[in-house]
Amino acid sequence: MSQSPKQFHLNAFLMGVGHHEAAWRHPRTDERRVLDVAHFQELAQIAERGKLDSVFFADGLAAGPRVEHNIQAVFEPITLLSAMAVVTERVGLIATASTGYNEPFTLARKFASLDHISHGRAGWNIVTSGGADEAANFGYDETPDHAGRYDRAAEFVDVAVELWDSWDDDAVELDVAGGRFADPAKVRTIDHDGARFKVRGPLNSPRSPQGRPVLVQAGSSESGKNFAARYAEAVFTAQRTLAEGQAFYRDLKARVAGAGRDPHSLKVLPGIVPFIGDTEAEAKALEQEFTDLISPAYSLRQLSGMVGVDLTEHALDAPLPPLPPLDRIQGNKSRYELVKNLAENEHLTVRQLIGKLGGGRGHRTVAGTPEQIADDLQLWFDREAADGFNVMPPYLPGGLEDFTTRVVPILQERGLFRTEYTATTLRGHYGLDRPAARIGAARARAATA
Amino acid sequence: MSQSPKQFHLNAFLMGVGHHEAAWRHPRTDERRVLDVAHFQELAQIAERGKLDSVFFADGLAAGPRVEHNIQAVFEPITLLSAMAVVTERVGLIATASTGYNEPFTLARKFASLDHISHGRAGWNIVTSGGADEAANFGYDETPDHAGRYDRAAEFVDVAVELWDSWDDDAVELDVAGGRFADPAKVRTIDHDGARFKVRGPLNSPRSPQGRPVLVQAGSSESGKNFAARYAEAVFTAQRTLAEGQAFYRDLKARVAGAGRDPHSLKVLPGIVPFIGDTEAEAKALEQEFTDLISPAYSLRQLSGMVGVDLTEHALDAPLPPLPPLDRIQGNKSRYELVKNLAENEHLTVRQLIGKLGGGRGHRTVAGTPEQIADDLQLWFDREAADGFNVMPPYLPGGLEDFTTRVVPILQERGLFRTEYTATTLRGHYGLDRPAARIGAARARAATA
Repeated sequence: MSQSPKQFHLNAFLMGVGHHEAAWRHPRTDERRVLDVAHFQELAQIAERGKLDSVFFADGLAAGPRVEHNIQAVFEPITLLSAMAVVTERVGLIATASTGYNEPFTLARKFASLDHISHGRAGWNIVTSGGADEAANFGYDETPDHAGRYDRAAEFVDVAVELWDSWDDDAVELDVAGGRFADPAKVRTIDHDGARFKVRGPLNSPRSPQGRPVLVQAGSSESGKNFAARYAEAVFTAQRTLAEGQAFYRDLKARVAGAGRDPHSLKVLPGIVPFIGDTEAEAKALEQEFTDLISPAYSLRQLSGMVGVDLTEHALDAPLPPLPPLDRIQGNKSRYELVKNLAENEHLTVRQLIGKLGGGRGHRTVAGTPEQIADDLQLWFDREAADGFNVMPPYLPGGLEDFTTRVVPILQERGLFRTEYTATTLRGHYGLDRPAARIGAARARAATA
Repeated sequence: MSQSPKQFHLNAFLMGVGHHEAAWRHPRTDERRVLDVAHFQELAQIAERGKLDSVFFADGLAAGPRVEHNIQAVFEPITLLSAMAVVTERVGLIATASTGYNEPFTLARKFASLDHISHGRAGWNIVTSGGADEAANFGYDETPDHAGRYDRAAEFVDVAVELWDSWDDDAVELDVAGGRFADPAKVRTIDHDGARFKVRGPLNSPRSPQGRPVLVQAGSSESGKNFAARYAEAVFTAQRTLAEGQAFYRDLKARVAGAGRDPHSLKVLPGIVPFIGDTEAEAKALEQEFTDLISPAYSLRQLSGMVGVDLTEHALDAPLPPLPPLDRIQGNKSRYELVKNLAENEHLTVRQLIGKLGGGRGHRTVAGTPEQIADDLQLWFDREAADGFNVMPPYLPGGLEDFTTRVVPILQERGLFRTEYTATTLRGHYGLDRPAARIGAARARAATA
């Protein structure tokens, strides 16, 4: 295939010992490592050797119904990424954190801290926490409604940005002779007084190396896309076909332009679950080994959560029952639509659907040779369905090691991916400007809105 | 001096480049290291080489009035300790975190995460956040009242304990053949429904190596001491004379017994700021060098906060003006009493008071030879004023290096301090039992209270 003039971005989405829900049962993993911080440090080092832009952890604020068959989150992401930051030098570190059940001051500070610790490699995947099981851990009988969650998220991020900008870059003077630690004129209150938050500031941390962490988002609902268009610098998304990927890409980039931003300032990164083999047949056989380890009872519970219907007693070889309409779904609307469309378009039984979803919870699985996988990624990139990819290895560390040592070199040969880091920060890897501190900018925007 | 049969505990209280407020201006420090995670990793390694029980960070949730002359907190403590955990193996890691402006689920999980990352070395210094500047960062026009803050703290810790105990120790099975990750019968909701919190649980983290982090507390008000008697396993305290230290020790141990606990299950650790020299004169000269670097403007602001009166325009060579009564103080009541008593008992001018407080914000300073400092610590230990000490080096890393290489060996020779670690967890260092999971215990206690 021909050389592309631009290069794309690769994020390693890390989860336990792999994204495949049965990864911990397969001989290619050591299931005990889900509890081992050294495992995650090793993953960050593998990603860095592969020159990847970043590593990333999803997160939720409830144990969920999955403890019997799987558990993905043992560690809180920011704490874990801090431990990974100090054994790496370049790779970006993206943590999911919720605007639903945190306070802006507390969370802004944690990301400032991670950005200081990593010398400018922090990213924040902004989620609004749509799960009823999450709400129940924070005093709520019901999930806050979808629109309300996004309103809160917008104000939350506005406040966080003001807090990150509350110290000028040159505020810290360390003037030993004069005895002046920082210039108080360059450290200012933000005096935010909005519908949901009232925060005086300033933040109790000097401005961090990146100024602000890279803002990432993954919702694909209308509210989610509009939020991304306004705030996000990278978007993780699940797109199953090239046509769907192109439509999503066009739609989101248009919204970014509509929000008055340069479309290049937001990177669209669809998820991809790669099964890699010496031959296509070998790769598909490997995928089948994992599928065969899926526990239907677990998958039914997970699928029930995705579609808003209890399927745990449903016949495996029947199609899905009628699903509730989209406007009744309070959780992840885009995941609901993806699952519904997949089942209907491909006329799948529940058992077949479970197999398709098992690899990456609805993200696209590609099984093939390194060359085939590189071709697939290049196709999506060349046809403007992606600015890069959210790589979701089905098993870890092997699946990431294989991707970085077998697929990445092909992408590098084709000029599609960096052969060395050219920047030291995550913003630098993504080609994003370092934002200037802009005291009061969010207040000014609110006043003119 | 004679050998003591018991051994005591040593915690290194870390703060920037030293506890002395002018430490960053002294040639023995490199002021730029306040922003350097490697500095803090090095401090943890120094403490570990000295076989210390733990390192500890204080914390506050506001930048405060100090940015012009000093800043102690750049990093959020849990994030920072995570980076320190992975370059050490034995030393305990204690983070301050507030019950005032966090949610129990979020904070319980962060400490579980730190305990997993450190393989059982996490401790939580519980604070209630009494500052008005802190309240203003979380939507409050006034500081919540003292008693209300402690009521909230008690329920907060009850919920956190229930969450830590919501997974049995053997819940995680990792049964690869049977496909069972965890035994769902050993992971339970807590269904807490109290005056301030409603939390369903379970926690989204398996039970951590220590079961629960070591619970630490530092308030010395009536509410603070009663809270400590009920919950704390270690108490940091500022005591200036042996008689005061003995009285505090007796009082607190009696309260612990009164709460139905073994008095040995709570360690009393007074603060000590050591200036170490080859001779006493050299040590005192070193202390004077630091005192001479104090900025009165900064100190007046800090003192104003301690006593609840604006002293920034007050004459330096006059005594303190009349202070408000204790019941008008909403912040740190014990610090207020300490400062008031010090000024009155020693008839100090404001300038003299500032000098006395500059080394460690009211904690006891001892300047002398290593032998003299060891004698002093042994005296407090032998006379039952301390189970150990919260060592607050005036400058870092030098002050910690000197303490661990010059004072600790003397204590070891006298049999007062361990020569090797005999445990791998912070609970082990403190000789505390690992608590069994006790589902519903807090609920049962509430029902019978």
